[in-house]
Amino acid sequence: MKSAHVELGDIVHGAAPLQRRAIAKTITLLESTRDDHRARADALLTSLLPYTGNSFRLGISGVPGVGKSTFIETLGLYLIDRGHRVAVLTIDPSSTVSGGSILGDKTRMEKLSVHERAYIRPSPSSGTLGGVAEKTREAMLVCEAAGYDIVIVETVGVGQSETAVSGMTDMFVLLQLPNAGDDLQAIKKGVMELADLVVINKADIDPDAATRAQAQITSALRLFGHHGNPAHAHAVHGAEAVHHQWQPRVMQSSALQGTGVDAFWEAVKLFKTLQTANGKLGARREKQALAWMWERIDAGLKHAFRHHPKVRELLPQALAQVAAGTLPASTAARNLLSAQAGQA
Amino acid sequence: MKSAHVELGDIVHGAAPLQRRAIAKTITLLESTRDDHRARADALLTSLLPYTGNSFRLGISGVPGVGKSTFIETLGLYLIDRGHRVAVLTIDPSSTVSGGSILGDKTRMEKLSVHERAYIRPSPSSGTLGGVAEKTREAMLVCEAAGYDIVIVETVGVGQSETAVSGMTDMFVLLQLPNAGDDLQAIKKGVMELADLVVINKADIDPDAATRAQAQITSALRLFGHHGNPAHAHAVHGAEAVHHQWQPRVMQSSALQGTGVDAFWEAVKLFKTLQTANGKLGARREKQALAWMWERIDAGLKHAFRHHPKVRELLPQALAQVAAGTLPASTAARNLLSAQAGQA
Repeated sequence: MKSAHVELGDIVHGAAPLQRRAIAKTITLLESTRDDHRARADALLTSLLPYTGNSFRLGISGVPGVGKSTFIETLGLYLIDRGHRVAVLTIDPSSTVSGGSILGDKTRMEKLSVHERAYIRPSPSSGTLGGVAEKTREAMLVCEAAGYDIVIVETVGVGQSETAVSGMTDMFVLLQLPNAGDDLQAIKKGVMELADLVVINKADIDPDAATRAQAQITSALRLFGHHGNPAHAHAVHGAEAVHHQWQPRVMQSSALQGTGVDAFWEAVKLFKTLQTANGKLGARREKQALAWMWERIDAGLKHAFRHHPKVRELLPQALAQVAAGTLPASTAARNLLSAQAGQA
Repeated sequence: MKSAHVELGDIVHGAAPLQRRAIAKTITLLESTRDDHRARADALLTSLLPYTGNSFRLGISGVPGVGKSTFIETLGLYLIDRGHRVAVLTIDPSSTVSGGSILGDKTRMEKLSVHERAYIRPSPSSGTLGGVAEKTREAMLVCEAAGYDIVIVETVGVGQSETAVSGMTDMFVLLQLPNAGDDLQAIKKGVMELADLVVINKADIDPDAATRAQAQITSALRLFGHHGNPAHAHAVHGAEAVHHQWQPRVMQSSALQGTGVDAFWEAVKLFKTLQTANGKLGARREKQALAWMWERIDAGLKHAFRHHPKVRELLPQALAQVAAGTLPASTAARNLLSAQAGQA
């Protein structure tokens, strides 16, 4: 495996083509299931860590057809024009379930994908959502170490992937069609509560509907949004007013016509400025890192449990008895835990 | 400990006073933290299991002040009048956090608590919500074995306790005040989606508001309710229409004046009839038992992890490094898991 030869310096300081190969190799190493690869990946990640954290991490979600690819391509080229380097990572739950992929096709972003200041990596195509999210989080660190200062993590609006993307980015943006029915779905699934910014995309198709949707979602965000409990609001410091804090908002855009990208990026910059000044950005990253650690621990504990020989032997009968109501669920749990611990 | 002497026969066939003492002793045994008590409790539970499952399990939730106690007392006396035996169990998250309790006071239900055909047990007052829920699930089985054919599990609308109660009952009822603001809170917290039936209680206080709330919540239930994906709807069998299936509904009641209890119980009976005929009640119980088992396994795995000597030794530094961004979260997780497994 070529990835054996990844050098930290190639990622952090390498010339463009060398760096690109080093990133790809590192991500391949991260996605390997071999224990020795994993150990090397851990060592490499730890050595990369001092060079990470300097990007802005932008999560973008929306149902298939909302125009994510076009939006991200337009935004990416806009940012590159302004001197940024842009990485686009993808979490596509459909690729892990069906092997097929809604988002996997790199050529969706024709101009961005060939640009030397952009790096596009499709979704890992196997593993649980938790596993895929982990690989993507790690790939994000690699891209940051390589100097990409904007990392976009994209996902489709299916399953729990929005929660995963929101949990690894600084700002979570939800793209919506100018269609009143969609926001109810997003509210129902709890996705609207995650959104720092909602963009009504393809607004040119039906300007009236877009304006109605904007009003509806604005009102929904007021009800369901981040405002939090007044009891937890920042205290007033001396004569100063409360710290300025980002409030979720709704805007319109037509990525196809290139309209709205400017205003969108201004909003993102305002978000970054406010949330950096009031400390929320740093707090969010710290919380995300700790949540990520506990999530991986939980996943590891469950994996070890399910693969323990004694548990594998006893589990089928326990499941059958609990389902049939002949063994109390809590007793079954205790028996299986004792079996794993070697006490039964 | 007197609970050493609990006999299966005392619970299942004992005369009223003997049975009542046997139930109380058994529940005390279930709540004990001593390993030998727990082993005996497991054995007793398993022997009781063939006598369980014959009650209707009714979950009732609502914020403090909505009138749960009065509602449950009125309902309980109504049911006893009609030949039922009624057990009321309580899950009160506030009692485990503060030691104080919103619901713990038995004397809230003065008439019901002294009735020989009723059994009222306050919330276990220590442990996590998961632990408290487990004790309540087990207490429910004991009451069923003792012949209580209606088990009411009550909780306050705080924290995650509604999810716990919904996850152990056949039908989950949400009491609401005739106040339009409440339903938004319930929707936001995802509680509305759990409700099989919503009762606007104290409707007599403001009949107009109650009628408005009924309309609003009915509309919310249509949007957020159990209707499910049309693709998963029951197939049409021959000339028959689709299986009849309960649809969540909203009714009004004034427990203080005793109005609405009749209609409420008719609705519960209809729910039971429909969901028994279409198999959903049995499927719900089976799913609950399996979910309960996995939840207890997860809790056990986490407990063992956090109490492992090597993990306790390494965890503080890992948390600090992950929070500070000097150790990748996934690497920290792997290191700690290896430490527990004795590989580091």
